[in-house]
Parts: sequence; structure tokens; C-alpha cells
Amino acid sequence: MPLFLARKPLAHTQLSHMDAQLATWRVMVEERLRASLERGPDCPDRLREAMAYSLLGGGKRLRSLLVLMACEACGGDVEAALPAACAIEMVHTYSLIHDDLPAMDDDDLRRGQPTSHRRFDEGTAILAGDALLTLAFEILAAELRPPAVAAACCADLAAAAGPCGMVGGQMDDLQGSGIRGQGSEGGDQGGGDNSQLSTLDSQLPTLDRLESVHRRKTGRLLCSALTMGGRIAGADDQTRGSLTTYGESIGLAFQIVDDLLDVRGNSATMGKQVGKDEAAGKLTYPGLLGEAESRRRAEQLIDEACRAVAVFGNRGQRLEAMAHYVIARDH
Amino acid sequence: MPLFLARKPLAHTQLSHMDAQLATWRVMVEERLRASLERGPDCPDRLREAMAYSLLGGGKRLRSLLVLMACEACGGDVEAALPAACAIEMVHTYSLIHDDLPAMDDDDLRRGQPTSHRRFDEGTAILAGDALLTLAFEILAAELRPPAVAAACCADLAAAAGPCGMVGGQMDDLQGSGIRGQGSEGGDQGGGDNSQLSTLDSQLPTLDRLESVHRRKTGRLLCSALTMGGRIAGADDQTRGSLTTYGESIGLAFQIVDDLLDVRGNSATMGKQVGKDEAAGKLTYPGLLGEAESRRRAEQLIDEACRAVAVFGNRGQRLEAMAHYVIARDH
Repeated sequence: MPLFLARKPLAHTQLSHMDAQLATWRVMVEERLRASLERGPDCPDRLREAMAYSLLGGGKRLRSLLVLMACEACGGDVEAALPAACAIEMVHTYSLIHDDLPAMDDDDLRRGQPTSHRRFDEGTAILAGDALLTLAFEILAAELRPPAVAAACCADLAAAAGPCGMVGGQMDDLQGSGIRGQGSEGGDQGGGDNSQLSTLDSQLPTLDRLESVHRRKTGRLLCSALTMGGRIAGADDQTRGSLTTYGESIGLAFQIVDDLLDVRGNSATMGKQVGKDEAAGKLTYPGLLGEAESRRRAEQLIDEACRAVAVFGNRGQRLEAMAHYVIARDH
Repeated sequence: MPLFLARKPLAHTQLSHMDAQLATWRVMVEERLRASLERGPDCPDRLREAMAYSLLGGGKRLRSLLVLMACEACGGDVEAALPAACAIEMVHTYSLIHDDLPAMDDDDLRRGQPTSHRRFDEGTAILAGDALLTLAFEILAAELRPPAVAAACCADLAAAAGPCGMVGGQMDDLQGSGIRGQGSEGGDQGGGDNSQLSTLDSQLPTLDRLESVHRRKTGRLLCSALTMGGRIAGADDQTRGSLTTYGESIGLAFQIVDDLLDVRGNSATMGKQVGKDEAAGKLTYPGLLGEAESRRRAEQLIDEACRAVAVFGNRGQRLEAMAHYVIARDH
């Protein structure tokens, strides 16, 4: 059963089937990712194998598609944006490998397969992550044109992924484990469906903290995908601002849906352990706001995202469809 | 007792005392590194603390100084090269943090202090390394001018640090533990001083392998320091080629001296555990060639390095002095 009632015709909410163009883009990204791992003899076989295992092991390629969609929305040449589409997928993959490590979230399963450190070993997993992060910047810097765009995209991606972005979010997330319900006296913390707006209000400090983690851990990377796509198309600051608003909104919505799927989903569909957040006592949206209020908030965010990309008219259609997909997905 | 007899007046081999300019440069680098960690509230305190602990915890700043020396040798503005000097120090520091992890070399001591995962915890150490690597590219991309130089330096540094460079070398080093003496039938493997050139010849495949690891694990990053310094000064390909020759030579010499110091040094001077390579059965220069032949090879490499930078005349003096320092150092 889907988490949300479809509010658009089904074709608009099923991203994977809606659009032959997206399928083509996905194939282009996969091919380019595969080619980018064809390194010379200086790259040890085991390292290459571990990089390929995680990078080419499935994944929805949402971030890559966002780069290409943003480039299209701004009237750019989508093929010119492929290096950025690959780089951001590498950064995302590195973050999953490192987040799964025993010293971090200690996960055994990712996309239905053993995590990198389970399939290989911890040292190899750490190095495969390091290598993918580094390779991302090499590809951006060496393959994007002109150099001013290459340098700006490197700066965007690094700021989004670094200590004030994704790594900072993961650090706070690590430290925040077990604080569920902190500062929440009297609120409905049970994840029931009867949460009201007043619950939301009384939880603001905790909610702020939760959103701050997700904004950095997930949202900033999504925003950098969009910003890079815009830059490559030559978009101005204001246009990139619309893309950022869109990215922040779908980023939070994405996380809310992740949390809801963790409560409702099952391991087979999700390809990873579920119910783990609750078991670990982690702060989550349904834990904090209840399921109904969490769904309401996700829908509100998707509306905001769609309003932000209305400026692109027809060229923004795929971004709009992607926003709807974020809350329609079941894995 | 020094490992090598001084072949130049002492002032030329004691880098730290030889030159007020170098002391000034070091202070400039330290200040810039410290300032680069002043991030906004999005950077968690614990993460910033762990980054500062390793980044500002001493270190010889050899790589930073090489950037500035190469820039000077090519007639460039040394201050303009400071972002690259900081970036390479961040990449070097990240590599030390990750190499020290239990899943890698499992070291408790670095520069006389507990390693990052001992002082903090493993998760924090992994993230501090990730953050420093990412921040390095942000600084290069956002602070170097013009953008074409920024992009080229990002590509240089990433290629040097990535899967075909430093990370690849570390992977092979991890896998190579315990192969000491492989393919060495009949050779003198005892580390005695009586090794001859014939021993070197009979060990070529193993020696090639050892040098391949060090070229990637240490040499490529040193070369990128020099190449970036040259680029920022506007040096052409041929001039950067001389810098690369110099970097490859001092890189290998540096590693030979490291191996010799591990045999001869003591923990107090080195600030880290010594005798560990032998205990771990690791392939080392003295283990493979004996101490005398290892010293001879280091001296030969330093001569090659000095010949390569002779083209710079007086402006290359500091690079020459640095080459002599590499084999004169006792820690």
C-alpha cells in the first residue's frame, strides 16, 4: 500500500515508467560511471572491485537525474552535465559506504546486498569510499568545461559534502542517536496518527535539530546536484536560487518518506534493514510528529518544491514529476 | 647520530634553522590552516575539534613548503599559492588519520600524541578525515585564481590522492603486509650493511613493487605539491616536468629515510612507534636492500633531485636545500 494517495495521474508519480528520456539518461549515467572506473594499472584490482561493487550496484540515481533535469530546466546541454551527474553519484556512494561502517551506523545490508565492509573488509571499504570521493573531484575538475564552471562546481559539491554539509550532518546524527524525545515533555511521541499541529509547535527545538541534521546530511547534496546542473546551463544566481528552494524542500520530504518507510516498509522492498531507527531510539519524523503529521508535512514540502520550479514552465516538468515521485516511492 | 654524513654545510641540511623565510612561510601556513577551520555553526564542535587536533597538531609542513618553494622557483607570487599549501596539508592529514585506523595500520601514536581514533573515537576519526579531504577541494576551488588554475590544481591533487595515487598505494600497502622476502631466494634479506648492487638486481621485481607502492602512497602527493606551485606561478609543461622529476626523487628518498629511521630511530624522537615495520613483516628498503645500499640509493635520488631543479638557478635554492634535508632529518 502506498504511503500517500496519488494526487496526480499515476504516470506522473511513477518516475521509472513515465519517461523514456529518463531511462536513456540513466543508461548514459551508468555507462559513464562504469567507464570512469576503467583506471590504469596503478589502481589496485581489489580497490577497483570495491568501488565498482558499491557504485554500480543499483541505486536510483536520483542525484544524477537531478543534475540533468536542472540543466534541462535551465536550457542547457544535458550531455555536458554528465561529469557532474557522475561525480555526485560517487560522493553519494562514498557516504553510504562510510555511513555503513561498524564505527558508524553498522549496517550489514544495503540495496539488498552485503555492505562494502561485509563483502570486502573494513580497510578496503574505507579506502573505496576515500577513492570515490577523490575521484568525484577529479572528474568534475578535469571534465567539466569551461574551467570557471568546473571550479565553481567543485566548490559547490565540496561545500555541500564537507564539514558544514553532509559530513557535519552525519557527525550530528552519530552523536544524536538515542536522544529521541529529548525536550519533548508531554508531547505525543508514540508515532500514532493522532498528532496535531500543536504537537509540532511544542516540538520545535527538537524538530529544528532533526531538520538541521537532514538538511546537511541529505538536503545540501541534493541542492548541489541542482546548482551544478544550473551552473552548467549558465543559469544566473536567481534561477539557481529557485533550484535550491526546490532542493531543500524535496530533500526534507525525501527524509520524511525514508522515516515513514522505515516504520511501514519491509526489508525485501527496501533492500536494507527496517524498523532500525525505532530500535536504535533515533529521532525520526514519525517518532516526533506521528505518521499523519509527517505525511502532511511531506506533502506541504512537495507543494513548495513544485511552486519553486514553476518558473521553468514546460522545461521544469521532470523536476515537478520527480518531486511527486519522492513521496510516491515505496523503496 | 645522523643516518647520513652531511655533504653540505650544516646550514644547508637543517631546513628548520637555515632560513627565516621558511619560518615565515610556516607561520603563514599555520595561520591560514587555523582560519580555514573557522566554519559556521553548521560544523559540529566535535568534528571541528577532531579536524583541528590532527591538522594543527604539529607536522613538518613539508608539502606546504614544497608548494611555496615551487611557486617561488617558477617566479610566482607565493602568497597566491597559500590555498594550495593548505589544501595539500589537509589531504596529507586526512591520509594519516585514515591510515592510523584499526582497520588499516592500527596505530595508537602519531607525532607523539594519541591518534585521532584513540583521542576521539573511530567514527569521529573517519569523519574528520572525510571532512579534511573534502575541505581541501573546497579551498582549492573557491580560493585559487584564476578559475583555470583552480580547476587544474583540483584535478592534479585529486589524481595524486585518488585510486591511482595515494589511496591505491595504501590499498597495495595494506594487501602487501607480510610479503617481505617474496621472490627473494638467495638474497641477503637480513638488513645487514653488506648488501651489494647484485642484491639489488636480483630483487628487482620486489623492489619495483615496493617503489610502485611508495610512488603512489607518498610520491604522487609530493609531486602534486610541486606541480600546483608551478601552475600557480604560470609555469609551462616542461618546467612542471622538472618539478615532477624532483618530486619523484625526493619522494622515494623520503620513504627510504623513513624506513631507515624505523630501524634506527626511537619512539621519543619519531613521535610514533618504531620497529613496527619489521615486526609486521612489511617490505622495507633496509629489509630488502640492506641499510648501506638503502642509504646509497637515497643519496643517488637526492643528487637526481638537485640536478632536476638546477634549471631554476638561484630561485631553486630552497628546493635544493629541502632535498638535502630529506636525508639529513632524524624524525
